[in-house]
Amino acid sequence: MRLTLNADLGEGWGPWSMGDDAAMLAIVGSANVACGGHAGDPDVMRATILAARERGVSLGAHPGYPDLAGFGRRPMTLSPAALEAQLAAQIGALAAIGRLCDWPVTHVKPHGALSNRAAVDRDLADVIARTVAALDPGLILLAPALSALALAGQAAGLAVALEVFADRRYAEDGQLSPRASPGAVIADPGAAVAHLRAMLAAGGIVTQGGRVLPVAFHSICVHGDAPGAVAVAAAVAATLRADGHELVPLTVLQLRKPD
Amino acid sequence: MRLTLNADLGEGWGPWSMGDDAAMLAIVGSANVACGGHAGDPDVMRATILAARERGVSLGAHPGYPDLAGFGRRPMTLSPAALEAQLAAQIGALAAIGRLCDWPVTHVKPHGALSNRAAVDRDLADVIARTVAALDPGLILLAPALSALALAGQAAGLAVALEVFADRRYAEDGQLSPRASPGAVIADPGAAVAHLRAMLAAGGIVTQGGRVLPVAFHSICVHGDAPGAVAVAAAVAATLRADGHELVPLTVLQLRKPD
Amino acid sequence: MRLTLNADLGEGWGPWSMGDDAAMLAIVGSANVACGGHAGDPDVMRATILAARERGVSLGAHPGYPDLAGFGRRPMTLSPAALEAQLAAQIGALAAIGRLCDWPVTHVKPHGALSNRAAVDRDLADVIARTVAALDPGLILLAPALSALALAGQAAGLAVALEVFADRRYAEDGQLSPRASPGAVIADPGAAVAHLRAMLAAGGIVTQGGRVLPVAFHSICVHGDAPGAVAVAAAVAATLRADGHELVPLTVLQLRKPD
Amino acid sequence: MRLTLNADLGEGWGPWSMGDDAAMLAIVGSANVACGGHAGDPDVMRATILAARERGVSLGAHPGYPDLAGFGRRPMTLSPAALEAQLAAQIGALAAIGRLCDWPVTHVKPHGALSNRAAVDRDLADVIARTVAALDPGLILLAPALSALALAGQAAGLAVALEVFADRRYAEDGQLSPRASPGAVIADPGAAVAHLRAMLAAGGIVTQGGRVLPVAFHSICVHGDAPGAVAVAAAVAATLRADGHELVPLTVLQLRKPD
Repeated sequence: MRLTLNADLGEGWGPWSMGDDAAMLAIVGSANVACGGHAGDPDVMRATILAARERGVSLGAHPGYPDLAGFGRRPMTLSPAALEAQLAAQIGALAAIGRLCDWPVTHVKPHGALSNRAAVDRDLADVIARTVAALDPGLILLAPALSALALAGQAAGLAVALEVFADRRYAEDGQLSPRASPGAVIADPGAAVAHLRAMLAAGGIVTQGGRVLPVAFHSICVHGDAPGAVAVAAAVAATLRADGHELVPLTVLQLRKPD
Repeated sequence: MRLTLNADLGEGWGPWSMGDDAAMLAIVGSANVACGGHAGDPDVMRATILAARERGVSLGAHPGYPDLAGFGRRPMTLSPAALEAQLAAQIGALAAIGRLCDWPVTHVKPHGALSNRAAVDRDLADVIARTVAALDPGLILLAPALSALALAGQAAGLAVALEVFADRRYAEDGQLSPRASPGAVIADPGAAVAHLRAMLAAGGIVTQGGRVLPVAFHSICVHGDAPGAVAVAAAVAATLRADGHELVPLTVLQLRKPD
Repeated sequence: MRLTLNADLGEGWGPWSMGDDAAMLAIVGSANVACGGHAGDPDVMRATILAARERGVSLGAHPGYPDLAGFGRRPMTLSPAALEAQLAAQIGALAAIGRLCDWPVTHVKPHGALSNRAAVDRDLADVIARTVAALDPGLILLAPALSALALAGQAAGLAVALEVFADRRYAEDGQLSPRASPGAVIADPGAAVAHLRAMLAAGGIVTQGGRVLPVAFHSICVHGDAPGAVAVAAAVAATLRADGHELVPLTVLQLRKPD
Repeated sequence: MRLTLNADLGEGWGPWSMGDDAAMLAIVGSANVACGGHAGDPDVMRATILAARERGVSLGAHPGYPDLAGFGRRPMTLSPAALEAQLAAQIGALAAIGRLCDWPVTHVKPHGALSNRAAVDRDLADVIARTVAALDPGLILLAPALSALALAGQAAGLAVALEVFADRRYAEDGQLSPRASPGAVIADPGAAVAHLRAMLAAGGIVTQGGRVLPVAFHSICVHGDAPGAVAVAAAVAATLRADGHELVPLTVLQLRKPD
C-alpha cells in the first residue's frame, strides 16, 4: 500500500525555531508548512521550502488562525469573508515563495484550532474547501479521515487525501479524543506503531472502545516538536516500510478528484 | 495623451484606517494596495480590492519593508534572499485575495523606504524587478521616471509604467528632493497643477533649477492621506481632463514589454 | 454635585490615530489611556500623557486583552495568572512613562471585552481588582455602577469610582443593553443628555423599562471616536455645568477607600 | 573576590522558547530578563521572574529595540523621546510583574544593538542612564567595563556594575571585537576560562594584542542559548569558585552610587 507520512513544519518565527525540521524532512514525504498565521515568517517559509525541495518532499500550506501568540491553538470567530481572506493571504504567501523556489504548493492542511473546528463544523469546512478550490482547483486537501472537512473538500471538487494519527486515540464517532482526556495521546512509540498497524489491518479507524470505522486513508500524520517525537516518526516509517508499505510524497499518490 | 492617476490605498490595519480610500477610488485609475508589510491586513486588502473592482480601478501590489510600527518608512537592511521572500509573501497574499475577488493584481509598486532606495540602488532594484518577473512576468512594474527601478524593470523583461509626482519637486539629477528639504513638497493645489502641466508640456521632468530631463511618463502619483489631499487629487484629475488628457486604468495603457 | 467626565484616549498605534484626543482632553477630566494591549505604543502613550498633563486631566490606565488586530473587543480566555501578568505589563508600562512625564497614573479602567466580562463575572473581576491593588493600593478603580467589578474593587480595598453612560441604555438588571440590541446606543445628543439628566435626578440608573436602580455615581463616560462624538461629549459637559454640577478630574473627587 | 555571573534569560515569546533558562538559573547570580521588546511576553516574564526568585537570582530588566522579528539585533534610530518611552514601557512592564511576584527588578542592562551602540555612543548612553535614573534611582546599571554606558551611568548618579565577557575577545580600545571578526568569539571552554583568569589576574581587560587596560569589574556575562553554552557557563562558575572567588547575586555586591 502506498502511503505518505506528513508533518507540520516551518513553525519557527523570527529568531525562534521549533522542532527539528531537518530530521523530519528525512522521514516524511509531505510537509505542511506554516504560512505566517500561527508561525512562519517569509525567511522561515523560504528555508523550509528549499529544504523540502532538496528532499523531494511534497509542499503543503498549513494555514491557521492569525494568532502568533497563541500558535493558532485558540479558537477564534471569523466571519466567512474574513476567514476566506485570511486563508488566501496565508496560502498565497507560501505559494508565491514556492514559485520563487521552483517548488510549488500542492496541498493544503488547516492548522490547530481551525483544523479542530473544521473537522466537525461543516459550514466552516465548506468555507475552507471552497476557498482552496477558488485559489487553485488543482490543490489537494489533506483532511482527517471521517471529518466534515473531508466531505467539504469532495463537495468543492477537490482531490482529498485522508489522514489518520498514529499517536492519538479516537472516540467512538471517529473524531480524535480531546488532547486533555486520559490516554488520548500515545507517548510510547511501540503503542503508536501497534495502533497504526491495527488501523491498517482493519482498513479503518479503530476507536478507543475497539470499534472499527472503515475508511480508506492515504496519510499518517507524525509530529516533530515534542521530545522524542522524531524517534517516534522514524519508528513509524521503519515499521511501515518493514510491513511492505511504500512511503511516497503526497503528489505521487495520484488522488483523483471527485466525479 | 493617455495617463493613469495612481494612489497608495488600503493602508489601514485592524481597527485603524488611513486616508479616504472611497474618495480616492472615485478619482484614480490605479490603486497601489498595501500587502501586510507596512499596512493592510487580509480584511483591509479584501475590502480595498472589492472597492477597486467596483470602480474598475487597476489593482497593484504595494509591498514595503515588514514594519507596521514604522509604516515601512524606516530603512531596513535585508539580504537579497530575505527581500525576495518578503516581496513574494506580500505580493502573493494580495494576489490570492484578488483571485478570490475576481479582480487580479496587474501591477506592483514598492512602498516607502524600499521605494526610495530602489530609485537609486540598482542592485536592490534588480532584486525587486527579478522577483516580480519570477512571480508573474505579466505584471507591470510602476516605477518613478528616471529611477534605477525603471531600468531594472526593463532589464528583467517587465512592462514598466513610469510615474511622476505633481506635488513634489525634483533635484537636478531627476530624483525627488528629500521630503525634509525646503519646498520639496508642494502643498498648494494650484502650484501642483502648474508643476504637472510644465512637465507635460516639456515632455519630461522639470527640476527645481528649471532643467528639463526628457522622459515619457505614463502615470501621476497622487496622495489621499493628508488633510486636503483628496481635493488636490481631484483638482489634478479635473485639470488633466480639461487639458484633453484621457485618464484610464493602468491596464488600459497597453504598455509593451522591452524587446 | 461634583462629577468627572471620562473618555478612552490614546488609542492610536504606530502610524495610525483614532479619534480626536485633543478635542476630548479639552472636555473631560479623566483620561483612560491604552497601554499597548488593544492600542497604544510607547510614543502614543507618551504623547497622550503629556497632553493630559497640560490639561490637568487625571491619568488612568486602560488595559485590555492583548489583541491589536481585534482592538481588545474579542473575548479571550486567559488563566488568572496570565491575566495578572498582562494587566501588570500594561499598567506598568503606562505608569513608567507617566513617571518619566511627571504625570502619574492614578486610576485603572478595563477596556472592551475585558471590561464587559468583568462587569458580570465576579471571579474575573476579583483577579483584576486584586492585581490593581497589588501593583499600587492607591490606584482608583473606575468601574461601571452596579457591576461585579465595582464590588470586586471594594473587596480588594480599592477606592472605586462608579461610572454611568449617557449614550447607552440599561437593561432591567442595571447592565448595559448589548450594543447590537435595538435602541441600545443613543445617537441623538439631546436624548443622551435627557437620559443622563434623568439618572442624575433619580439618583441612580434608569433602565429601558423605566425602573430606577438607586446608586451613587461619580463619573460619566463619553466617547470621542465616532463621528459627532466630540459634539455629544461637549453637549454633555455644557449641560452638566449649566445644571450646576462641577466637573473635575477624578483625583479631585477624593474617593475614600472602603473601611 | 566577590563577583556575579549574569546571563540574558526569558528570551522566549508565545509558543517559542530560547535557551535553557532553568539550567542557567542554577549557575548565575543575576538574570537580565527580556521585557517584550526583542523577546519576552508577560507569561514568559512572569515564569522567568518566579524561577529567578526561587533561585535567589537578582532580577534585571533587559530592554532592547522594539523588534521581535530581528531580536533587537538590528540597529534602529529612535529619537531620544521615543527611546525614553520605549525603555520606560519595557522596564515598567517587567518591574510591575516583578512587584506582583514579590521579586523586584534591581538592575537594568540594555540588549543587543541598543547595548552595542550604548557602549560607544555617549549621547545614546546618557539617554538610557537618565531614563533608568528617572524611573528609579535605586536601580543598578549593568554596563560593559570601559563603555560609554558605564560613564553615563555614573554621570546619572546610578550605581554601576561593570561586566566583562569570558567568551569574547577585546580590541585594543577595550571594546568587544566585532562578532564577525576572526577569533572574536571564544568557543572553547578552556580558552574562555583562561581568558577570564588572565583578566582577573591582570585586574583589567586583556586585549587581543595582549595589552592590559586596568579596570575593576564586578560581573562576568555568560550565555545560555548556543549549543554547549550551558557547559561553558558551568565551567566558568566552577573555575571561579575553585580560584577562591565568591559568586553572589548582583544585589549582594553592595555597589555604591557615585558621590
